[in-house]
Amino acid sequence: MTNSLSQQLAEYAARNNDQLEHWLTQLPFSDQPLVLAMRHGTLLGGKRARPFLTYVTGSMLGAEMDDLDAPAAAVECIHAYSLIHDDLPAMDDDELRRGKPTCHIAFDEATAILAGDALQTLAFEILAAGRLSAEGNSQRIAMVRELAQAAGAAGMCAGQALDLAAEHKRVGLAQLETIHRHKTGALIRCAVRLGALAAGEKGVAILPQLDRYAEAIGLAFQVQDDILDVISDTQTLGKPQGSDVALEKSTYPALLGLAGAQEKARQLYQEALHALEAIPYNTDSLEVFARYVIERNN
Amino acid sequence: MTNSLSQQLAEYAARNNDQLEHWLTQLPFSDQPLVLAMRHGTLLGGKRARPFLTYVTGSMLGAEMDDLDAPAAAVECIHAYSLIHDDLPAMDDDELRRGKPTCHIAFDEATAILAGDALQTLAFEILAAGRLSAEGNSQRIAMVRELAQAAGAAGMCAGQALDLAAEHKRVGLAQLETIHRHKTGALIRCAVRLGALAAGEKGVAILPQLDRYAEAIGLAFQVQDDILDVISDTQTLGKPQGSDVALEKSTYPALLGLAGAQEKARQLYQEALHALEAIPYNTDSLEVFARYVIERNN
Repeated sequence: MTNSLSQQLAEYAARNNDQLEHWLTQLPFSDQPLVLAMRHGTLLGGKRARPFLTYVTGSMLGAEMDDLDAPAAAVECIHAYSLIHDDLPAMDDDELRRGKPTCHIAFDEATAILAGDALQTLAFEILAAGRLSAEGNSQRIAMVRELAQAAGAAGMCAGQALDLAAEHKRVGLAQLETIHRHKTGALIRCAVRLGALAAGEKGVAILPQLDRYAEAIGLAFQVQDDILDVISDTQTLGKPQGSDVALEKSTYPALLGLAGAQEKARQLYQEALHALEAIPYNTDSLEVFARYVIERNN
Repeated sequence: MTNSLSQQLAEYAARNNDQLEHWLTQLPFSDQPLVLAMRHGTLLGGKRARPFLTYVTGSMLGAEMDDLDAPAAAVECIHAYSLIHDDLPAMDDDELRRGKPTCHIAFDEATAILAGDALQTLAFEILAAGRLSAEGNSQRIAMVRELAQAAGAAGMCAGQALDLAAEHKRVGLAQLETIHRHKTGALIRCAVRLGALAAGEKGVAILPQLDRYAEAIGLAFQVQDDILDVISDTQTLGKPQGSDVALEKSTYPALLGLAGAQEKARQLYQEALHALEAIPYNTDSLEVFARYVIERNN
């Protein structure tokens, strides 16, 4: 990771954490397990890749940072809720996440389900109630619609359902791509689009190019995750290495071999760069991030 | 139940079902368990009390029926998702709901969790994308905020968390009221408020009176539920009679005795009527509904 990217990631992550802290602090019953579990699921680490994309895309287009806080926090709340629910015993049954006990281990299953539920709700509350200047309400509505489409039964939830249905089955490359375009790709694309929508007309004008970029890095993110599950170790990952193999999940290394998966990641990186060439703004940060996606080791 | 109320309930329920069907039909992967489970959780029965309140409140204030479809469908999606999650083994562990197998019994636990998740998302998508004329976007944003506050960690989710924490414990009347004002009251109040917000300024002007009405019938709804758990039978209820006793839940009959609980329900009914007196519109339907809340047998 280049020094400037690592600085930028840290800076936006800190800003995003402050925002999440702000929204979580104003909840009632703050000493109850529900709120503590929501905090556990959002504030204890994480790369904040999605908020980063919202901030970087919006800034590139001239949006004010203050106008990006709400969409960045909202998209992270959706991501955090999805991790809590994915880790549940009935789903992926994971006990370790970001090097810490998962939510249902640290609390209990009922609390983890509710904390995920309430974090999803909070995402929409933040979009509706957070600061947003410029074109205001019509932008907000577009963002609510965008986030709902990315998160729900046409997006992330569909991907998780398809992924569960594919466990212990051999699926082909096309099906694997369908799973990941929904399970992780939809929300990554949404993070970029929310940044663009916050910038108004200028952002809307380049949504197709941004979509191409985001779809490429979204898939690359998953390919690299699959690669890391094979070549990394549990401590670096912060979650059990080899868990895909244990669940007999279809992965890119399983279908293409390790070298084939690495080649796939490089192709997707090239696709992302190609998409950025058509964008008439300073795309340096998005470019560096794309490189990070396929070179990261956790 | 009076004949005209039963007709009105049936009419609005049918309209609400059509709307839910419309939104569910446009989802992709419609033959997959996720979507089938979402349909199971929304379309197989239910009184549609919340959509009724949205329609009746909005109509009373002169809102167009077409403008009430989205908020009524959204509030029912939140209600349906909450039932699916509340019935899960880690929560209330119920196998029967509305006389049919609960979602995790008819499908499986993972699918039930995801179906609930995706129904919550759909609620916000419907509010953002559904038809709404008049003041348009600022109303929509107010509705998204309203629904999020009612559903999340300051509302319904908080209530369910408090309820779970109170299982196998003796709680006092004040605590029981806090639980129910959040667990069921917040969404019932929201259903009324969404109807008012859809009517614009006229609705906003009488929100305090509507809140008093809705808070009274929301609590009365729960008191009557508790009473029915004691005096009704499983077939009439569509869920196991006596399950509150089995879970050692604190209930109004447990705290006040059966006669005391019935008196409490009547007091709340009077409070609701009193609130309606201060509303300068034709409140007949809201009045009849309040009576139904404390006289219903399922």
